[in-house]
Amino acid sequence: MNRHVIFYHSPQSRSAGALALLEELNADYELHSLNLPAKEQRQAEYLKINPMGKVPAILHDEALITEQVAVFLYMADLYAEAKLAPPIGDPLRGPYLRWMAFYGSCFEPALIDKSLKREPADPSVCPYGDYDTTVKTVMDQLAKGPYLLGEQFSAVDVLWGTALAWTTAFGLVPKTPVVEAYIERVTSRPAAKRAQARDAELLAAREKAKSS
Amino acid sequence: MNRHVIFYHSPQSRSAGALALLEELNADYELHSLNLPAKEQRQAEYLKINPMGKVPAILHDEALITEQVAVFLYMADLYAEAKLAPPIGDPLRGPYLRWMAFYGSCFEPALIDKSLKREPADPSVCPYGDYDTTVKTVMDQLAKGPYLLGEQFSAVDVLWGTALAWTTAFGLVPKTPVVEAYIERVTSRPAAKRAQARDAELLAAREKAKSS
Repeated sequence: MNRHVIFYHSPQSRSAGALALLEELNADYELHSLNLPAKEQRQAEYLKINPMGKVPAILHDEALITEQVAVFLYMADLYAEAKLAPPIGDPLRGPYLRWMAFYGSCFEPALIDKSLKREPADPSVCPYGDYDTTVKTVMDQLAKGPYLLGEQFSAVDVLWGTALAWTTAFGLVPKTPVVEAYIERVTSRPAAKRAQARDAELLAAREKAKSS
Repeated sequence: MNRHVIFYHSPQSRSAGALALLEELNADYELHSLNLPAKEQRQAEYLKINPMGKVPAILHDEALITEQVAVFLYMADLYAEAKLAPPIGDPLRGPYLRWMAFYGSCFEPALIDKSLKREPADPSVCPYGDYDTTVKTVMDQLAKGPYLLGEQFSAVDVLWGTALAWTTAFGLVPKTPVVEAYIERVTSRPAAKRAQARDAELLAAREKAKSS
């Protein structure tokens, strides 16, 4: 099977974790960098690919995969030999899916309300309930460590490690020793370092283009 | 493999779609109904199972699966013979994951802001961008029909068909002819009818217990 994918990305965006994942998977990807501050993601050319005008997005042959959680699930299964996704039938598959979905459905909405100092919606409709319970649920899981699934490092740690790095940096999530050690475990891996270096290059190239 | 699961559910909640899915899959499940108006989901006994105090939740052996999207992905893969999940390697697997993740990460947050008449967060942080684009993206996909993946009915339609039924009923999503026909296609299926009947029984039993 042809596993070459096109990866729509921008440094300093939600797709940072996806870049780290592609490096962890040693995936065959072609990176297209979008200049978000210049609003390239809202231009017709990109909206034809992803009508939501967001990154990350993956094109694999004719298939479009958008949304961070979908990109993670898809790529980790496509490159199964990297063993970053418990296979279907594995006892860890359910918890793996749980923490993936939890990220998009609970953690992000909770963080956004928190960052905007908004009250959560009524518990009967709010997808996450309340911020403290949401963060505590993740923290309690991390305390069991070293990874979200226990001993086994997986794609879900790439997602959460990257997200916790910026959310603690912005003071949205408390930087407890447990969280700090977890972020370090995930973001100090060689693949994570390669992704960070790639993003630094992309940003430098963007700056250079701006000043020339 | 033992595929018996315990399903934590409540009628008139987010877990309505999960019940329909279990019926579509002809799954071996044991239903535990929680009385949400009586706040059973916030009591210690249930918080030991799901610390977020939400339904749906699935227990499969030792594994806990929470979050609607995770429950859908997990169960549809577990009962693969029902063919409601394109398998890994199928060209529709990516779009299937995309529309699953889109539900939790974009559609629900957009709807909640809409229902509370809140402005979305700044585009740089908002997971969905704006309400109109979010709804249009789904509508455009449904217009291609008959299902989100085209000709193939899948678990993602159970999720969206159920959700669109209540969101159009509450006036949060416009009930266009395309949407109306889609909801009808999904919710008139025998499995969907069985789920609705089961929920009606659960509600009737709850009312009876209250008045006795």
